[in-house]
Amino acid sequence: MTQHTLERAFSDLDFAMMSRAIKLAKRGIYTTAPNPNVGCVIVRDEEIVGEGYHHRAGEPHAEVHAMRMAGEKAVGATAYVTLEPCSHYGRTPPCAEGLIKAKVARVVCAMVDPNPKVAGRGIQMLRDAGIEVQIGLLEQDALALNPGFIKYMRTGMPFVQLKMAASLDGQSALSNGQSQWITSPAARQDVQRYRAISGGILSTSKTVIDDNASLNVRWDDLPNSVQAQYLQEELRQPVRVILDRQNHLTDALKLFHTDGERVIVRSDGDCIPLLDSADQIDLSTTLKRISDEHHINHLWVEAGATLASAMIKANLVDELIVYLAPKLMGSDGRGLIGALGLSAMADVIDLNITDVRMVGVDIRITATIKRNEIR
Amino acid sequence: MTQHTLERAFSDLDFAMMSRAIKLAKRGIYTTAPNPNVGCVIVRDEEIVGEGYHHRAGEPHAEVHAMRMAGEKAVGATAYVTLEPCSHYGRTPPCAEGLIKAKVARVVCAMVDPNPKVAGRGIQMLRDAGIEVQIGLLEQDALALNPGFIKYMRTGMPFVQLKMAASLDGQSALSNGQSQWITSPAARQDVQRYRAISGGILSTSKTVIDDNASLNVRWDDLPNSVQAQYLQEELRQPVRVILDRQNHLTDALKLFHTDGERVIVRSDGDCIPLLDSADQIDLSTTLKRISDEHHINHLWVEAGATLASAMIKANLVDELIVYLAPKLMGSDGRGLIGALGLSAMADVIDLNITDVRMVGVDIRITATIKRNEIR
Repeated sequence: MTQHTLERAFSDLDFAMMSRAIKLAKRGIYTTAPNPNVGCVIVRDEEIVGEGYHHRAGEPHAEVHAMRMAGEKAVGATAYVTLEPCSHYGRTPPCAEGLIKAKVARVVCAMVDPNPKVAGRGIQMLRDAGIEVQIGLLEQDALALNPGFIKYMRTGMPFVQLKMAASLDGQSALSNGQSQWITSPAARQDVQRYRAISGGILSTSKTVIDDNASLNVRWDDLPNSVQAQYLQEELRQPVRVILDRQNHLTDALKLFHTDGERVIVRSDGDCIPLLDSADQIDLSTTLKRISDEHHINHLWVEAGATLASAMIKANLVDELIVYLAPKLMGSDGRGLIGALGLSAMADVIDLNITDVRMVGVDIRITATIKRNEIR
Repeated sequence: MTQHTLERAFSDLDFAMMSRAIKLAKRGIYTTAPNPNVGCVIVRDEEIVGEGYHHRAGEPHAEVHAMRMAGEKAVGATAYVTLEPCSHYGRTPPCAEGLIKAKVARVVCAMVDPNPKVAGRGIQMLRDAGIEVQIGLLEQDALALNPGFIKYMRTGMPFVQLKMAASLDGQSALSNGQSQWITSPAARQDVQRYRAISGGILSTSKTVIDDNASLNVRWDDLPNSVQAQYLQEELRQPVRVILDRQNHLTDALKLFHTDGERVIVRSDGDCIPLLDSADQIDLSTTLKRISDEHHINHLWVEAGATLASAMIKANLVDELIVYLAPKLMGSDGRGLIGALGLSAMADVIDLNITDVRMVGVDIRITATIKRNEIR
């Protein structure tokens, strides 16, 4: 994390306004991908005169909405933005230029642009125009808004969440493969929410075939709290990326008859052929390519134990989302992840648990992988 | 649960005083076994004139402490007791008689005596003496004070808590048996706390030998919060019950050189020989006998997957205490419980999760077994 020198102490008003900007940014959580969630609040004489958030790629940035609302009142005001205002000419003119033209006196950014190649340019533009700029207010909250956008900008790789579901004793299926349903309807709705936030869903032909899974977002299956946050017409489908090295997928599957883009990763054919020396799909290169080519910076992985352990071993997982159902299935079931072949306790994979909560009758555990942090 | 008609509505004062009595009762949690935890508060003119709790078997009951403190002020007062006052002459005269002699005007009990053969006699004695008696205030909290005492009184069987510890993916050891330490020091301290509450600890010779486990309570390993609740001199050791069908235990083991009573369940020798038709230890009969003969109504089970599944299958477990460590060990490890041989999802063992919390870096899950409730 970048450390910033605070030019002057932030006031209670500053905290309250940035907090509001972050709340506004979150309203775009289901619609902005692959763009970041950004919120902006413009305040003059302790009064909010404009506010807005980025809603969808191709539509105005948060600052534009806020400036339109503020109009003449932006003159001499303070603009709170959750991300450094952009400095480049894209589909819209740069926001830094907009803020200069609007004659704001001060800009407070929660964080700088995560792209090291452009970071600070927007801030420089503002400062060159004589505007006071402060950075770093509620930075941790701002970072949490856009894990995918930030990781991709910093590393070129997508932010990866691996979903797992098991009984309390860690079994993801009975020995005969039966697993419907381990988790409750509430947990499955929660999964729909994660899918809706993501830019892409990664799975395997085995999972798609076994469950005839469509792996898309179904409006009716979203929790009510999510439906309340955007309109059904705005439903955005993540790109479904299916690993199908041996070309097992057939046209009859639901996958091919449901909304949403598909990318089939095969060893031949019209799609991405990415094999490593062992003739296995090279996961790292595949992830890099699908994120570059399909603008996926936030990937949700739903598959079986084989892909789960391969992803973990390849150090590609940023966050585990584990649903544990209130059931015991016995050690003769199928494990949550595959064999790891460990012979010493010192070699086990250490996790940081960052969140534990009930989702219906199930427990949902969020964890990061410790060795991932060392990388 | 018994339903009681409330003769008159309880006041805020009633709730506050019974709540205080329950808090007092909890002070005996580490010392009263096999006696129940009981608290008593005596109130006259909205003022607490006496209070006390049962501290240790053989010492005065809660009501006696409270009456001694109240003295003459007990006349015309209300006594709040978490359990129906006793009506029998034991090591101490019956408390119901004491309350009559002290001339209290009213007695409020959280619950009746759980022993169906004596339930209500104390209440009857009080009513016969013209004392107003009300029952059922904060009954659920009072029931939670004494799960062992209550279950044993009602059914003749001990309340059984089964401890399990595993990685997040449900593995209790690596394939080579290595398991030290899956959980953190904080979780192991928490286990010491559960041991200290219990009347007995059940384990197997395999666990005792593999870990050279003493299975006792070590004052220095108790959490500070527990040490603050009683004195080291009062440390009470639960009875250690070890299943050793094949006489594997040897004198050199720590088990035999640490404080606390031991009961070794063997197929011959000086101890309880309890074999079923398959020459296995009959768990149900064993539990019944150790609870009767050694006054254990609250049993803490610490053993491996084999005993865990046998206990669960025999429907002998009331509560699971599961520690999940922030680790992944891989499905080639050893499972949390043994094989259950299930072939349909409808046959899995359903649980009710009653508590989830962090203990240090580990997650502790408390659950009851659903089919146990049907019994």
